[in-house]
Amino acid sequence: MRTTRRDAGRPRGEPIEHAILTATLDDLAEFGVEGLSIPRVAERASVNKTTIYRRWPTREQLVAAALAATLEQTSADLCDTGSLRGDLLLLMRLVTARLESPTGRALARAAMSEQASASVAAISQDPSVRAQASVLDLVARAAGRGDWDPARSSPDVVLAMLTGSVMHRVLMERLPVTPAWAEGVVEVLLRGLEPRG
Amino acid sequence: MRTTRRDAGRPRGEPIEHAILTATLDDLAEFGVEGLSIPRVAERASVNKTTIYRRWPTREQLVAAALAATLEQTSADLCDTGSLRGDLLLLMRLVTARLESPTGRALARAAMSEQASASVAAISQDPSVRAQASVLDLVARAAGRGDWDPARSSPDVVLAMLTGSVMHRVLMERLPVTPAWAEGVVEVLLRGLEPRG
Repeated sequence: MRTTRRDAGRPRGEPIEHAILTATLDDLAEFGVEGLSIPRVAERASVNKTTIYRRWPTREQLVAAALAATLEQTSADLCDTGSLRGDLLLLMRLVTARLESPTGRALARAAMSEQASASVAAISQDPSVRAQASVLDLVARAAGRGDWDPARSSPDVVLAMLTGSVMHRVLMERLPVTPAWAEGVVEVLLRGLEPRG
Repeated sequence: MRTTRRDAGRPRGEPIEHAILTATLDDLAEFGVEGLSIPRVAERASVNKTTIYRRWPTREQLVAAALAATLEQTSADLCDTGSLRGDLLLLMRLVTARLESPTGRALARAAMSEQASASVAAISQDPSVRAQASVLDLVARAAGRGDWDPARSSPDVVLAMLTGSVMHRVLMERLPVTPAWAEGVVEVLLRGLEPRG
């Protein structure tokens, strides 16, 4: 599957799950988490609604599944650029592309809503989802190069600073993430993470 | 007016505006931005609804006004602690107290919603609101002490990293902002901002 700009924010997974979670994102973008309808998602995905209810009995679980799939996709897109600077800039670009797309923005809002509370908290606290393999790879590569002392700064803190800064910029301030602004964030992180004598 | 924990997130302003914006936060916490009702806010604040419509003709403008008042209150609470570390930790505590209170969380969600788009964008882009006086004072003090080179890292970038990291932690991951976690963020910022030879 080619990843095009239009696909930013589309979840991966087996075909039927992919179709359901993609339809979930489209429904969220159109109706928000309050209006999300499992029967309509089933129609959009051309599946029977019991196919959805069997996997995800509630809207909240459906939102959480779409979030987990999107995080996995970001993780899969995060390749080794050869430097911590390059890796962090790539991660910023991936997060920005998600949050600047209507479906990604709708998903972020749904994940932050009161409605999605318990299931989304479960995802954040699930080590298999939180410890996204490729982000830990990023940290391990940086530590190996001497660019990051993981005993001093945890990946959790750095991910929250990077992702959160983009969320604040795009969702709250509603300002564009320009290359200069993204480099400003990455510059502070690089200098902040650099081990010292 | 004493600021107690219960008051976290309460806007300041002249008494009638204070009453209206406080009622707006309560209504948002109960009904969300989709359910926010100006007639009900008027009832909560014991004012005539035309008193609200005269100042803020739409729900969107009312949300934006509540956000601006809350940002001003945070700014007013941000005193000089004597060090950049202390100032940044205080700012994290203020942002965390807002986002951990039901009204502050409801306001953040409303400000990030599609509905509030234009007016909230206008606030973010209004220099008189964005350039919160006390945050610029914080930067000026830090620059004076040699702790921050503002030519290198803009206050915008640092504020987005600090506020955004707390938003991500509280609203998305739904994990507590522990003192150790907050210190982890501030440590990266301090090292990232420090001028070098």
